[in-house]
Amino acid sequence: MKKIAVLPGDGIGPEIVAEAVKVLNALELEFDMEAAPVGGAAYESHGHPLPESTLKLAQEADAILFGAVGDWKYDKLERALRPEQAILGLRKHLGLFANFRPAICYEQLTHASSLKPELIAGLDILIIRELTGDIYFGQPRGRRTAPDGHFPGAEEAFDTMRYSRPEIERIAHIAFQAARKRSQRVTSVDKSNVLETFQLWKDVVTEVGQQYPDVALDHMYVDNAAMQLVRAPKKFDVVVTGNMFGDILSDEAAMLTGSIGMLPSASLNERGQGLYEPSHGSAPDIAGQGIANPLATILSAAMMLRFSLDQPQAADRIESAVQHVLAQGLRTADIHSDGTTKVGTREMGDAVVAAI
Amino acid sequence: MKKIAVLPGDGIGPEIVAEAVKVLNALELEFDMEAAPVGGAAYESHGHPLPESTLKLAQEADAILFGAVGDWKYDKLERALRPEQAILGLRKHLGLFANFRPAICYEQLTHASSLKPELIAGLDILIIRELTGDIYFGQPRGRRTAPDGHFPGAEEAFDTMRYSRPEIERIAHIAFQAARKRSQRVTSVDKSNVLETFQLWKDVVTEVGQQYPDVALDHMYVDNAAMQLVRAPKKFDVVVTGNMFGDILSDEAAMLTGSIGMLPSASLNERGQGLYEPSHGSAPDIAGQGIANPLATILSAAMMLRFSLDQPQAADRIESAVQHVLAQGLRTADIHSDGTTKVGTREMGDAVVAAI
Ligand SMILES: CC(C)[C@H](C(=O)O)[C@@H](O)C(=O)O
Ligand SMILES: CC(C)[C@H](C(=O)O)[C@@H](O)C(=O)O
Repeated sequence: MKKIAVLPGDGIGPEIVAEAVKVLNALELEFDMEAAPVGGAAYESHGHPLPESTLKLAQEADAILFGAVGDWKYDKLERALRPEQAILGLRKHLGLFANFRPAICYEQLTHASSLKPELIAGLDILIIRELTGDIYFGQPRGRRTAPDGHFPGAEEAFDTMRYSRPEIERIAHIAFQAARKRSQRVTSVDKSNVLETFQLWKDVVTEVGQQYPDVALDHMYVDNAAMQLVRAPKKFDVVVTGNMFGDILSDEAAMLTGSIGMLPSASLNERGQGLYEPSHGSAPDIAGQGIANPLATILSAAMMLRFSLDQPQAADRIESAVQHVLAQGLRTADIHSDGTTKVGTREMGDAVVAAI
Repeated sequence: MKKIAVLPGDGIGPEIVAEAVKVLNALELEFDMEAAPVGGAAYESHGHPLPESTLKLAQEADAILFGAVGDWKYDKLERALRPEQAILGLRKHLGLFANFRPAICYEQLTHASSLKPELIAGLDILIIRELTGDIYFGQPRGRRTAPDGHFPGAEEAFDTMRYSRPEIERIAHIAFQAARKRSQRVTSVDKSNVLETFQLWKDVVTEVGQQYPDVALDHMYVDNAAMQLVRAPKKFDVVVTGNMFGDILSDEAAMLTGSIGMLPSASLNERGQGLYEPSHGSAPDIAGQGIANPLATILSAAMMLRFSLDQPQAADRIESAVQHVLAQGLRTADIHSDGTTKVGTREMGDAVVAAI
């Protein structure tokens, strides 16, 4: 029996994960689901955002259903104890190097975008972000007395950006393979005009691309990509980039759709084990009010069924059910507009269950 | 007599700089203007994108009027000889650490934006980007055999992100002082939840902020800033950030206005010496056609008069003249729309001269 670790986390995490679990249960498949604390909640109960017991559960599971972590009340804690360290720790310990971040604009929600409808309607981009390398995890890093530079002898802080050839190769293969199932186009985003790391990135992605002659590859500098996403987002299909640039561009792309409350994500390792979470955060300002949108988490559960649990049909059923509730006109507050019916977190979950 | 180094560069650079020079001449002030090759043009004539003679001229000048550099035809050159190295070299050798990038949406050009008019009309953000530190210039950097990490022994490339306390202090002072002349608000953008460098950044900006009790300071993570710029750009006023994040966010913000052909920029050092250039690039695809928009360069000349040449009234005259030609309905192709008059690069320059 496949095992799912359920990590609700902080803020709206518990509410939205509860709905996704309800939807998973409605499928009447057999899973072993086990919950554990993570983030600020785990800090409160165990003194650490990623307790040993939670990490162990995650490592043993086939998939992790993750809510969200973080709350302003932990801002004053030392970095190692802050909620976000849980997600960084899970990525690192499980080797979750391949992050899939779709940016999709649902037909019924086009109006919610900041962009003019003709620019955003029908948007369907897949951003593939490398998630265990780059400046996020590169050593050495820290504070010291500056050995040289503009102010030798002054206090300074530093981090190391790094990518090795095999790290770039494996994420490039993921991107080209994903493009084969879509429209055979990959845009690799780099900053090779300035950074050694991204010159290697560009060289290696180009080399790997030669094994995929059916896929068109182009390269774009990150500053230009940030512009082109605003100017003409639909020109992109699969975008592959490093951890830091991917953090920025995937959030920018998500916000372009105007409905970040709808966007799931998946983070996979080489064994197909994966962590599935909504693209939005823990929204502590609306936690506990029963108004958060659970659809991103429900759609993350669908990705989980498809990528880690070998249940593509169940994934399709969830995705169709979500389409159905949107067509019915049900909307949580974040995507509500005139002529639609405003519902709460639980009603939305119930509607998806009913549609299944 | 104040000295201006005129560096037209590549692509549309020569055309747009010629119009800015024409406008400067129309002011009937006394300047010593001297031109020199830079970028690909300098590589062709001198074998290097930033020849000694050009650097010397720039160092001796009070201000540099810069066009743009870069062309795909130099993509195959080794990095040290590529056109962009000229701009990096000028920043480094002249210590141009403070980059001012206004993102302004002109009333008559609101329609050109990707964003819905109500979100963008009247936008007036000032992005202040640190320009001589961060991962752009941090040593060590290069290629090597990975000493550790995910694939020890593999080929890897690396760069170093660094900021020292005095580097952060001086750019923070610039931001707070700029905010005093605007609406007393600064947003500092960091990634302190992941990077040591930006934890120091946040700490130091907070400390400097205590010397400006009249200015409100808030902090935002770079991924969130990329989102909020799309969602509600008018919530920002002065934004201060590092070199890498500033590269991405200033371009994103510029593109949000839809009229990047209108946006000037200034890069200053501690002595008030500055480099002035349009925010857009060299656009080799339209070079030589006489259709490029010279207004960003003309407005850069206005910034130059104000910041480096002690001629604020002359700057005002240029800016009013640009407002006047917009009000007249004159538009280059990039900002043209129904009901306005399409003009070329030279006609636009002539119209600004006439308005002066
Ligand atoms: C919380 C933070 C460490 C994290 C990141 O920067 O990767 C988040 O922004 C994300 O994108 O998942
Ligand atoms: C050309 C390039 C090196 C440069 C940069 O990255 O700083 C450019 O993008 C800019 O913003 O001026």
